[in-house]
Amino acid sequence: MVAVCDIPIPGKIKLAVKNDDVQKTIVDVNGVKIGGDRVIIMAGPCSVESREQVLEAAIVVKAGGAQILRGGAFKPRTLPYSFQGLGEEGLILLAEARKETGLPIVTEVMDADKVELVASYTDILQIGTRNMQNFPLLKEVGRSDKPVMLKRGMSATINEWLGCAEYILAEGNPNVIMCERGIRTFETITRNTVDISAAPILHAISHLPVIVDPSHGTGSRFLVPPMSKAAIAAGADGVMVEVHPHPEEALCDGAQSLSPEDFKAFIEDIKPIIAATNRRL
Amino acid sequence: MVAVCDIPIPGKIKLAVKNDDVQKTIVDVNGVKIGGDRVIIMAGPCSVESREQVLEAAIVVKAGGAQILRGGAFKPRTLPYSFQGLGEEGLILLAEARKETGLPIVTEVMDADKVELVASYTDILQIGTRNMQNFPLLKEVGRSDKPVMLKRGMSATINEWLGCAEYILAEGNPNVIMCERGIRTFETITRNTVDISAAPILHAISHLPVIVDPSHGTGSRFLVPPMSKAAIAAGADGVMVEVHPHPEEALCDGAQSLSPEDFKAFIEDIKPIIAATNRRL
Amino acid sequence: MVAVCDIPIPGKIKLAVKNDDVQKTIVDVNGVKIGGDRVIIMAGPCSVESREQVLEAAIVVKAGGAQILRGGAFKPRTLPYSFQGLGEEGLILLAEARKETGLPIVTEVMDADKVELVASYTDILQIGTRNMQNFPLLKEVGRSDKPVMLKRGMSATINEWLGCAEYILAEGNPNVIMCERGIRTFETITRNTVDISAAPILHAISHLPVIVDPSHGTGSRFLVPPMSKAAIAAGADGVMVEVHPHPEEALCDGAQSLSPEDFKAFIEDIKPIIAATNRRL
Amino acid sequence: MVAVCDIPIPGKIKLAVKNDDVQKTIVDVNGVKIGGDRVIIMAGPCSVESREQVLEAAIVVKAGGAQILRGGAFKPRTLPYSFQGLGEEGLILLAEARKETGLPIVTEVMDADKVELVASYTDILQIGTRNMQNFPLLKEVGRSDKPVMLKRGMSATINEWLGCAEYILAEGNPNVIMCERGIRTFETITRNTVDISAAPILHAISHLPVIVDPSHGTGSRFLVPPMSKAAIAAGADGVMVEVHPHPEEALCDGAQSLSPEDFKAFIEDIKPIIAATNRRL
Repeated sequence: MVAVCDIPIPGKIKLAVKNDDVQKTIVDVNGVKIGGDRVIIMAGPCSVESREQVLEAAIVVKAGGAQILRGGAFKPRTLPYSFQGLGEEGLILLAEARKETGLPIVTEVMDADKVELVASYTDILQIGTRNMQNFPLLKEVGRSDKPVMLKRGMSATINEWLGCAEYILAEGNPNVIMCERGIRTFETITRNTVDISAAPILHAISHLPVIVDPSHGTGSRFLVPPMSKAAIAAGADGVMVEVHPHPEEALCDGAQSLSPEDFKAFIEDIKPIIAATNRRL
Repeated sequence: MVAVCDIPIPGKIKLAVKNDDVQKTIVDVNGVKIGGDRVIIMAGPCSVESREQVLEAAIVVKAGGAQILRGGAFKPRTLPYSFQGLGEEGLILLAEARKETGLPIVTEVMDADKVELVASYTDILQIGTRNMQNFPLLKEVGRSDKPVMLKRGMSATINEWLGCAEYILAEGNPNVIMCERGIRTFETITRNTVDISAAPILHAISHLPVIVDPSHGTGSRFLVPPMSKAAIAAGADGVMVEVHPHPEEALCDGAQSLSPEDFKAFIEDIKPIIAATNRRL
Repeated sequence: MVAVCDIPIPGKIKLAVKNDDVQKTIVDVNGVKIGGDRVIIMAGPCSVESREQVLEAAIVVKAGGAQILRGGAFKPRTLPYSFQGLGEEGLILLAEARKETGLPIVTEVMDADKVELVASYTDILQIGTRNMQNFPLLKEVGRSDKPVMLKRGMSATINEWLGCAEYILAEGNPNVIMCERGIRTFETITRNTVDISAAPILHAISHLPVIVDPSHGTGSRFLVPPMSKAAIAAGADGVMVEVHPHPEEALCDGAQSLSPEDFKAFIEDIKPIIAATNRRL
Repeated sequence: MVAVCDIPIPGKIKLAVKNDDVQKTIVDVNGVKIGGDRVIIMAGPCSVESREQVLEAAIVVKAGGAQILRGGAFKPRTLPYSFQGLGEEGLILLAEARKETGLPIVTEVMDADKVELVASYTDILQIGTRNMQNFPLLKEVGRSDKPVMLKRGMSATINEWLGCAEYILAEGNPNVIMCERGIRTFETITRNTVDISAAPILHAISHLPVIVDPSHGTGSRFLVPPMSKAAIAAGADGVMVEVHPHPEEALCDGAQSLSPEDFKAFIEDIKPIIAATNRRL
């Protein structure tokens, strides 16, 4: 293995970087271990739209091999008139889907005020890209006993992102999962540019597990499989992908969602790469 | 005047764009009118550090010609270990400085929870660049009766920024001030790249006033005067600049702060440009 | 004046930075002095299309107050099937327009091989943004006795740009003019983001004159006047703007070209700003 | 396989996109087929420094499994005072290394004038990132009978890059290889951000083979293996990596060069991923 790395890390980042106490964090989510020798697939719809939709999606992704169900109840939207998510009702439906399938849930929390509520339903608290530097929110999830998945800000450097993980860790929550979801560049074919190098860089300097989200990162369904394979080959601890029972009817981000058939094909597609990295699903 | 503008605006932005009801919003802050025929200078320290510091700064900027006092009580910082501001104590000191000088105050609020508290002291609620898309916070300030200054997200497009203004306006608060503070680019000499074109673009498509912040945008004291002149020449309704009684001792952003002498020279420097745009201080 | 500047300049840049020998270069182009107390207006069509068009444009810009005529004979185009310019015929027409109006000419050279040819017609050799780091071309114009206007690469840092000026200066040509023309960012309303701060930064660290091109930088006609005013207020030594007798018929970049009437209004618009900087047209 | 792709391609790009005549181009370089079922490794030093260095590097990369030898004779450098390459002497040494090892050569040509000279020695003409839109150069290599490897401009969109391939193809040279080498972003840990998605995007819309260069793209040796694996997993037709017999003594880009031992480990590292994509070295 080529092992030379002298990346400059801001001296004040103490907890998020590798140190004598911890070389690699494995986050245990109801028995699903993120950061170990299994590649984690988080899958599900962009937003929870109805009981039928989320249950169907949950069953599909469970059958396909996903270990964690994703779904948004509180949705950050560019405009106030767009569908903003079902709120607590969405959380209730996600919990129902968990009961049905046994899959732990990851869902976004957008407001420090709502951390207790969301944490009472979900298994992983997700901090979205727009809130990466919402420091009161970071502190609040840092005081929660639920693991936190911290998405990279759309235009955040890796060091700034680590600084945000530090906020959570400093409050006493050791279970932070980093999620690369694409950075803003001038390219227009893709919605963002997925920075695959974030995975090996974080693994070199930090002990935190790294998930890659090619659905939001690229904005295009056909790029989800190759970019997932790239992420896994580069050592990412898992990928998060959008799956919708009927992508063409999705209230949000249909163009990047995999159909149930797509998802099945997707899992078959990534299996050899997972095996090539000496890991398993 | 060259007047051709067919910029594509997302169809759903209704309130933030020019319309039959309103062509130009003038925000009245305790008698200081932002968006009219006076160029507004907001000045003061990055963060409130002590009674002495903020009073000294307030007196200096008042004497120099500033119409509004800026100062941070709640500071968003990249790392949890950096000075986070004095909190409510800082607000109390700002209110004292207002009493002393008569200058209205603008200060940042970072958390929906704190809007009521901050609004009870300040005259303008500032939304910082990291919170531009903190939608719960936008909704909350939209329900306040205090004007809101909305800073552009570091990597937000102008249309996304207008979408955030729409969130505030849609809650019933008509007094939104846009603040360009530099966007993230590859250039490293400046902290960010101040997008001066944001001012004429917003003036062409929106009725909201536009302030430019060259201190945060460039990160360098010597660029504050030329970039302020550029902003004013391009039609910005005002500028926000950092002034510290002793920049070399500042707890935050000293390298971009003007000293009292600098500020005095700065005002003299911009006066001819203000006059050339048929406006006055 | 606020005068603090400690920008890090690569140690090896010797000739393009201020030094004991030279604090400010004034480039003399047939008597038109660039870098002194006059603000220079370079104006004309994006590309030379016909004798009639270039002569009409030349007369219009001369009457309006421009001191230099711009026009492209060799055009770099994104696709091979787009109009590539008239080549030497375009140079001949430009020379004719100079004879008619007395205006010196600036035109682009794209190929080291063509430097001698282009230099035999033009008064300033322009290096376009796509060729900023075409080092053989830089060396060749460095050996010419004609002044060179070096456009900033679309995604070049200021230090890289200065490195390219150094290539020209190192070959013995002291007459280099820097031209900021917008950098590539994520914003989509404008074609590029004009980095106005490049002007005061270059003036702080380099002795070379700086021109700003808001036509290419913004891609929108209505932004040319405010961005020109911004550039001049920030200290730029001049602006380069596109003027076409009939913008709606332009073979190239019509949407950003000023009509003759626009140009007249434009000149009136910028005059007060020029005066406010203690300079004249 | 998830196969949905409706990327907008400029209508005028005809030859570089998939069409009835050609679905996938396989470029044959002295029997080495690029774009087929073998993953191509191009390896060698950034620049040719001496006979000993290039021969040693050639032998090392040949032994390791590389199919093509890279090495720069004409080097584009940010400053005129940096080592500019050995010029024709470097080409002679590369040809000697080919004779010694049988490996075809790829080397950069920077000037239309030098295409004939460089083509007389090399097997693939490389167009560097700074010259992607040097149109006279593109036309000249389009008239050569040697294959051309076209590096993506540092801040070029994929459509602009395809437009440049079109220039070469339109002159009659069908053997164009695309090379992703990282795009300019705000991230500072890596020199550039390698856009892995460029490989599957090009494969979806174009018939041209795609090589990824993680050495220049990341600037860090330790990122070469994971980013190579990512590229191969995403379907890239090969990778180009820098190998230097003594990286610590390299005149150029030592920090990103693999040592002979690194290269050996690198090849072992990527083999399972290559196998997982049903291809071989």
